[in-house]
Amino acid sequence: MHFARQAPYIPAMTARIEVLYHVKADARAIEARAKAIAVEQSVEMPVSAIDDPFVLNEIVGRVDSIDDIGDGVFAVRIGLAPDTTGFEPGQLLNMLFGNTSMQEDTLLVDADFPEEFVTAFRGPNQGLAGFRARAKAESRALTCSALKPQGFPSSELAKLAGQFADGGIDFIKDDHGLADQSYSPFAERVRLCAEAVANSSARTGIPTCYLPSLNGNLDSLRRQVRLVIMAELSAVLIAPMTVGLPSFHTLVRENPDIAFMTHPAMGGGARIAPSFLLGKLFRLLGSDATVFCNYGGRFAYTPKECGRLAQAALKPWSSVRPTIPVPAGGMVPERVPEMLEFYGKDVMLLIGGGLLSAREKLTAETARFVEAVKR
Amino acid sequence: MHFARQAPYIPAMTARIEVLYHVKADARAIEARAKAIAVEQSVEMPVSAIDDPFVLNEIVGRVDSIDDIGDGVFAVRIGLAPDTTGFEPGQLLNMLFGNTSMQEDTLLVDADFPEEFVTAFRGPNQGLAGFRARAKAESRALTCSALKPQGFPSSELAKLAGQFADGGIDFIKDDHGLADQSYSPFAERVRLCAEAVANSSARTGIPTCYLPSLNGNLDSLRRQVRLVIMAELSAVLIAPMTVGLPSFHTLVRENPDIAFMTHPAMGGGARIAPSFLLGKLFRLLGSDATVFCNYGGRFAYTPKECGRLAQAALKPWSSVRPTIPVPAGGMVPERVPEMLEFYGKDVMLLIGGGLLSAREKLTAETARFVEAVKR
Repeated sequence: MHFARQAPYIPAMTARIEVLYHVKADARAIEARAKAIAVEQSVEMPVSAIDDPFVLNEIVGRVDSIDDIGDGVFAVRIGLAPDTTGFEPGQLLNMLFGNTSMQEDTLLVDADFPEEFVTAFRGPNQGLAGFRARAKAESRALTCSALKPQGFPSSELAKLAGQFADGGIDFIKDDHGLADQSYSPFAERVRLCAEAVANSSARTGIPTCYLPSLNGNLDSLRRQVRLVIMAELSAVLIAPMTVGLPSFHTLVRENPDIAFMTHPAMGGGARIAPSFLLGKLFRLLGSDATVFCNYGGRFAYTPKECGRLAQAALKPWSSVRPTIPVPAGGMVPERVPEMLEFYGKDVMLLIGGGLLSAREKLTAETARFVEAVKR
Repeated sequence: MHFARQAPYIPAMTARIEVLYHVKADARAIEARAKAIAVEQSVEMPVSAIDDPFVLNEIVGRVDSIDDIGDGVFAVRIGLAPDTTGFEPGQLLNMLFGNTSMQEDTLLVDADFPEEFVTAFRGPNQGLAGFRARAKAESRALTCSALKPQGFPSSELAKLAGQFADGGIDFIKDDHGLADQSYSPFAERVRLCAEAVANSSARTGIPTCYLPSLNGNLDSLRRQVRLVIMAELSAVLIAPMTVGLPSFHTLVRENPDIAFMTHPAMGGGARIAPSFLLGKLFRLLGSDATVFCNYGGRFAYTPKECGRLAQAALKPWSSVRPTIPVPAGGMVPERVPEMLEFYGKDVMLLIGGGLLSAREKLTAETARFVEAVKR
């Protein structure tokens, strides 16, 4: 009986993480497949070889429901034990989808977290209100653009930043491709772009914020945050799936005064529902503003999924502050009225290439975008 | 002319990263789609708005070839500029697949790296030879099992570890689900399991190695490595896609005497070819042994993809040491002859649940597995 634990029987008492998967399967096979996922995402061994009542009752994943949603797809709800996550971001993702991410028949669609996850991870420090305060815009939609292309020297990127700021935009983020490359090293780029934006703001009176793109390991990220603070900036861009969720969340908790805009790169949109990953999970881990692919752009997100994502980011959730949705990806100023109609005012509209295409008319085109949003 | 750089024209001189994507597209649309991917994974803005010759010649991604491979799929080869990666692991993945990972029509299949990436990332410290030396096995296949289930207290996991070691197995890894949970905290688990394995080795004379599963942010990973060294262990398990590539690679470079076995959790097998991610990229970043889903187990990898992965891990590549392939996932001792036939002797066979199912006969079943491999 070497699998039996010495401790007395403990009945299941704690609330589970309720995870929703969509599974392609034959109707006759779905029950076994659902059980297999529940095992894969918990004990990952034959349950028949486990005697320990604590493991069987408290740790093994539990299939809570299976619903046929048509087209050979089933909505499978599985309850996972909170303790298996160790309340650590990387391990949380591991338990939600680690091994199952390698099985093509299954998508991770959503998860509902017990309150102890809110206590552990705490969500955004700043959220929607933090971005509104920076822009001094209490109730309208916010505006944002992006510094590109990479390959430009820092001085040229700084010129673009100044031109965007002259156009009155609220936020200017580095392209998420800007890291610490030889042609625009992080320290130099941040200093020059911050100066250009500050100079413009001094002229226009508009409090434009510049968000440098952070990257690298945790040592590098911490160094970069110090450079950001030295440049008198208070917001950054970060791609949690490329730096890793543990680094992202650590940085958020260490820097309560910094606003974090998250980028969806490596977000694996096709296997994890963007509404869950970019809306709910990034929010739980501290994203203040979440960039995602708008419908009708060059990515495949549907209006329905975009609506769900915005709702996941904004809706009341215990003490977790709302995260501002930032639809992006091939947007143009002409779409502003339609996007405001769709998202409402709690949104930040991000247009990058669509403004840069205006070339020598960049400032004028930016102003046109900003005016369209303010109207 | 605000997009023109002041620097003189520089002709394209550096070798590109040659990336292979498989793209589902209409034959009439594939050329435009290939160009769009080349732009997406480099400057990410309309090329028509760029005048700068350095950016146009050196930075914008280049479509090198498009081949119709049937079933509406095209093999698209794109050359990406090495400098865009900043020679940093997270940014490297970002440039290879960051935004495109969100587009359902495209898979990342392979990439060939110029020599400067070998210089920058350096590959495994130990590789195949390091694992062979630990097992004192010069030429045979190596054996491995896994400690499960999670939920067990450290003392029970240590008992299992002792039983595996009594069976003469070469390596025992923590289940990748074992992190720093309340029921088996990392420090306690590592100490007890290391003791159990050392005690067994003292009796049997077999140099079984125990590999604890690392997790958390870089601070936590470094603390855990110190505990591993204190326990007189010299190999670990880590899941690069859950801790983040930057943390993984940093740890590898900081610990040349530790052998790193990588786990594929969150490897997104369905969008990135496992042969590339788990074989080539993990090898470049320092994986000494790469766990992957064997064909015919409970995952969907094909024999062809498994063969490619093993080849990517092992084949001669400049100064990069070979990484030992570790096929796993629902394996049983009965499959040993077939797997050795398929993979040859440069392989580590990992059977977890298949041994644990033997329960009170665990040691005997382990010995049977070990003998089957040694024969």
